[in-house]
Amino acid sequence: MEITVYLSGEIHTNWRDDIIKKSKKLKLPIDFIYPITNHELSDDVGVKILGREDNKFWHDHKSAKINSIRTKNAIERADIVIVRFGDKYKQWNAAFDAGYAIGLSKSLIVLHNDEHQHALKEIDASASAVAKTVDEVVKILQYSSTKKI
Amino acid sequence: MEITVYLSGEIHTNWRDDIIKKSKKLKLPIDFIYPITNHELSDDVGVKILGREDNKFWHDHKSAKINSIRTKNAIERADIVIVRFGDKYKQWNAAFDAGYAIGLSKSLIVLHNDEHQHALKEIDASASAVAKTVDEVVKILQYSSTKKI
Amino acid sequence: MEITVYLSGEIHTNWRDDIIKKSKKLKLPIDFIYPITNHELSDDVGVKILGREDNKFWHDHKSAKINSIRTKNAIERADIVIVRFGDKYKQWNAAFDAGYAIGLSKSLIVLHNDEHQHALKEIDASASAVAKTVDEVVKILQYSSTKKI
Amino acid sequence: MEITVYLSGEIHTNWRDDIIKKSKKLKLPIDFIYPITNHELSDDVGVKILGREDNKFWHDHKSAKINSIRTKNAIERADIVIVRFGDKYKQWNAAFDAGYAIGLSKSLIVLHNDEHQHALKEIDASASAVAKTVDEVVKILQYSSTKKI
Amino acid sequence: MEITVYLSGEIHTNWRDDIIKKSKKLKLPIDFIYPITNHELSDDVGVKILGREDNKFWHDHKSAKINSIRTKNAIERADIVIVRFGDKYKQWNAAFDAGYAIGLSKSLIVLHNDEHQHALKEIDASASAVAKTVDEVVKILQYSSTKKI
Amino acid sequence: MEITVYLSGEIHTNWRDDIIKKSKKLKLPIDFIYPITNHELSDDVGVKILGREDNKFWHDHKSAKINSIRTKNAIERADIVIVRFGDKYKQWNAAFDAGYAIGLSKSLIVLHNDEHQHALKEIDASASAVAKTVDEVVKILQYSSTKKI
Amino acid sequence: MEITVYLSGEIHTNWRDDIIKKSKKLKLPIDFIYPITNHELSDDVGVKILGREDNKFWHDHKSAKINSIRTKNAIERADIVIVRFGDKYKQWNAAFDAGYAIGLSKSLIVLHNDEHQHALKEIDASASAVAKTVDEVVKILQYSSTKKI
Amino acid sequence: MEITVYLSGEIHTNWRDDIIKKSKKLKLPIDFIYPITNHELSDDVGVKILGREDNKFWHDHKSAKINSIRTKNAIERADIVIVRFGDKYKQWNAAFDAGYAIGLSKSLIVLHNDEHQHALKEIDASASAVAKTVDEVVKILQYSSTKKI
Repeated sequence: MEITVYLSGEIHTNWRDDIIKKSKKLKLPIDFIYPITNHELSDDVGVKILGREDNKFWHDHKSAKINSIRTKNAIERADIVIVRFGDKYKQWNAAFDAGYAIGLSKSLIVLHNDEHQHALKEIDASASAVAKTVDEVVKILQYSSTKKI
Repeated sequence: MEITVYLSGEIHTNWRDDIIKKSKKLKLPIDFIYPITNHELSDDVGVKILGREDNKFWHDHKSAKINSIRTKNAIERADIVIVRFGDKYKQWNAAFDAGYAIGLSKSLIVLHNDEHQHALKEIDASASAVAKTVDEVVKILQYSSTKKI
Repeated sequence: MEITVYLSGEIHTNWRDDIIKKSKKLKLPIDFIYPITNHELSDDVGVKILGREDNKFWHDHKSAKINSIRTKNAIERADIVIVRFGDKYKQWNAAFDAGYAIGLSKSLIVLHNDEHQHALKEIDASASAVAKTVDEVVKILQYSSTKKI
Repeated sequence: MEITVYLSGEIHTNWRDDIIKKSKKLKLPIDFIYPITNHELSDDVGVKILGREDNKFWHDHKSAKINSIRTKNAIERADIVIVRFGDKYKQWNAAFDAGYAIGLSKSLIVLHNDEHQHALKEIDASASAVAKTVDEVVKILQYSSTKKI
Repeated sequence: MEITVYLSGEIHTNWRDDIIKKSKKLKLPIDFIYPITNHELSDDVGVKILGREDNKFWHDHKSAKINSIRTKNAIERADIVIVRFGDKYKQWNAAFDAGYAIGLSKSLIVLHNDEHQHALKEIDASASAVAKTVDEVVKILQYSSTKKI
Repeated sequence: MEITVYLSGEIHTNWRDDIIKKSKKLKLPIDFIYPITNHELSDDVGVKILGREDNKFWHDHKSAKINSIRTKNAIERADIVIVRFGDKYKQWNAAFDAGYAIGLSKSLIVLHNDEHQHALKEIDASASAVAKTVDEVVKILQYSSTKKI
Repeated sequence: MEITVYLSGEIHTNWRDDIIKKSKKLKLPIDFIYPITNHELSDDVGVKILGREDNKFWHDHKSAKINSIRTKNAIERADIVIVRFGDKYKQWNAAFDAGYAIGLSKSLIVLHNDEHQHALKEIDASASAVAKTVDEVVKILQYSSTKKI
Repeated sequence: MEITVYLSGEIHTNWRDDIIKKSKKLKLPIDFIYPITNHELSDDVGVKILGREDNKFWHDHKSAKINSIRTKNAIERADIVIVRFGDKYKQWNAAFDAGYAIGLSKSLIVLHNDEHQHALKEIDASASAVAKTVDEVVKILQYSSTKKI
């Protein structure tokens, strides 16, 4: 069964590449899509394309609005949304993506370390799986798409 | 126009009571609903009702699942979802609620201080208003329900 | 928060009355709806109203179709669907109701004994709570509607 | 007309292979998808991938959650859902799948022997066809996709 | 359980009044809504309100459009749509209402004599009940709303 | 723009072939789908596959149910539904298809002679075009898919 | 039949009051809702509540976002949306409301003079009625809610 | 990520060709669809295909209805709807398309000069980006589909 997977969340480690490489090696019939992971570009894209803003709020607003075009459409066409919570930053956008995915009745897989377990309990509770490692995620994708592990 | 408002997010300050009191004083035609704000009870409700768990993950899971009954139904029947981000904790459930609300096409108002502005830019970008004080929120509710401020 | 609850499943014990009585005693703001629980009438209603059938399949078909009018509309207007699995019969209609409720994104509470745990794992996995006793269910309803237990 | 068919239910006989082989022989333009039919793997996949559980409930819960990823997405993309009820086990997950399919307005075909007729009357009543043999099912698929039998 | 019922179809006999009177006598908790049954007015309402048309097509078009305001909203808010096919006229609007109701997943009851059985088989096949008399319909409504007959 | 068109209604003249041939000659990027047009087979398919019925009602019911599998899925995937009303029979299933299509917000084109104009006014009023000839329909399809006539 | 009507568009004449008064005089069972019609307040509400902006674009943006809370929720709960196009200004928001209403499958009534007929043809084409005077609108509301004129 | 883009609005300048050419040069994985841009043909298509009308209203009505087939289906299948407001005409159909797109939860990009800023504030407020030049639009499409600019 071909599956479309959206990889949301942390952009400062290479967990996306890891999942994609390992899935390719296993020849999984999966189409991966993901947001802009170039942090600087994604922060400044609004003013770079549409002109500078003096006010930081509107600077960020224009970028966030443009980024939403890709994110919204990607989540809508995904069968499974995987959200990775890392160690840095507030990552409220990751949690927001998870909520949006559940609002659209998508299957959700959450990827995080034990230390965030309590803080993520509401999101974990709406997930189909809570994984701690990339390998666990890849096995779930393998199983869901090929019925084997 | 009668409006149903769900008050999501921070549970350690009295911002909800503030909004409700000030709205009542203005006789706004608004029905407020909100989640369980007793932190301890909401953390332990699962094991209190359904029996203890040795594993912290399942302890939290059972509570989060039961809490979701109220939260999910409240967001679904709300016309406006107001999400308050405070200074403490990760507050990923607040961001998750915001995402869920947008997934269901609800009007969203975000309430937070300047310091969280950059971290909340994606959520702010899908909001109908970003407020810094309870008074601003009450004025928006007054205006939306009675057409005056 | 006023809640509409549909009580699906087993019709040979008085678990529905139990839940309703205990909820009334607690003055919970809950509107309970439930299917026809008169077994004989619900089996024969089709031929009683619309005329006899020689073939058992059509005899049952006419009744099941008429019963679906109430069941379908009740699940659609419910905020929470509670499904009780008892000890007798196949109870496939109870499982069917649970699936229908999840298809419509309703909050689901499952009520059953330990012995059925393995056979009900898929249904339990989509539920917000899995209870063993009527008292547990009532506490969840109390908590969800009044924020106390 | 190309059709996507999901084959749900009994996993202890080879009815799925039968339908698929006979459909291939007739060159029907049908894409078949089905759940994991390796009983042991599907029971244990949760702990195999995500780590062991002492409690049987959570052991089953983790597997059921992971299995739901495939099942949910398969039913959502199916045009027709075929549910087979066999002679063994409770098969509540089959009835749950049927309910979920109807909740999503899918065309449903039920496959079972006469002995289960009364117990399955509610599910049969929401089906487009109630078949007793694999050959009947294949003819319905042939007719629906090629307009001939 | 309070139910909203839309009475569609034939406007030249008093079947609507019959159903409503008998339901009132039984004190059924049912809110009946129905289309404009004044044939002449419903044919000419368009030109009466919005000005005359030389072309019969547009004369009818304007009326049909205005009548659709009531019909569309009535079907949308109905829990059960009852469609009566009588002996006269083409009654394509009755069949159209039935299709619209099924497109919106409403419960459908069809009321007609034996002579139209073959011609109505597709509509009957998507109905929850096919009745021949007003009394049968009233009993189904009584049973669905009060669980007794 | 590639378009999927469902051809519903009259099965006793060759209007479908006409539209398809003329569209092919114009190389229109259109995928046509249509119901079973073999009248006898479509009347008897139920008993032919699933076994005979003594009662004409159930004889018809089984066929209508099986035919609905193709019809329902075809309308759901169509961008445009074309419904042809001819001179014979009641054709309530054609009107039912039109209603179902509008319930799903499809674009509707109705094809009929002047004599049925008044009886079809409600259906015409929800159509994007009311045509009298196959050539008019083909021009509308040409225009909608290629922007030329 | 009780009806909720949203009155969108022109805010510089008293057409809303006219419709409401005349409907009240006729005791029509209609609940009217409408946007903020205080032009200056609706233009400046954003900066009045949430703080001044140097840039006119963001000044307008904040107001438009806040106004959308009322507008969006009003259209969503309306059964009928009436849009009045007057003689002044671009009135793109009126046309936007009409498009939003049709996107949500609401019944639409358009009210405008002959001079705008050609420019409004797309909007008129998706309307249930195109009226030139307030009296025509009131008659349509009377007819739709009470079945008389 | 492949994206489908609908180009709505002004038909008297070559902004569509510009966007398409520049996107092709960048090899963006985008499928562009757009309405009939032959003004005369789109005004007269109704009477050309379906026969002349004496009344200008119905002349326009027939064309607008036929044009809606393409427009409605194009917006429904688009991921992003771009609406260009030019200097001439009322352009209410452009604003209507924007409203329809938002009613269907599409991502919206608005393209217009500064002079229309105030009049378009409500539409801009529901857009993901407000651009002034074709080059800005192309960069947003490049960024959204390829993650680079």
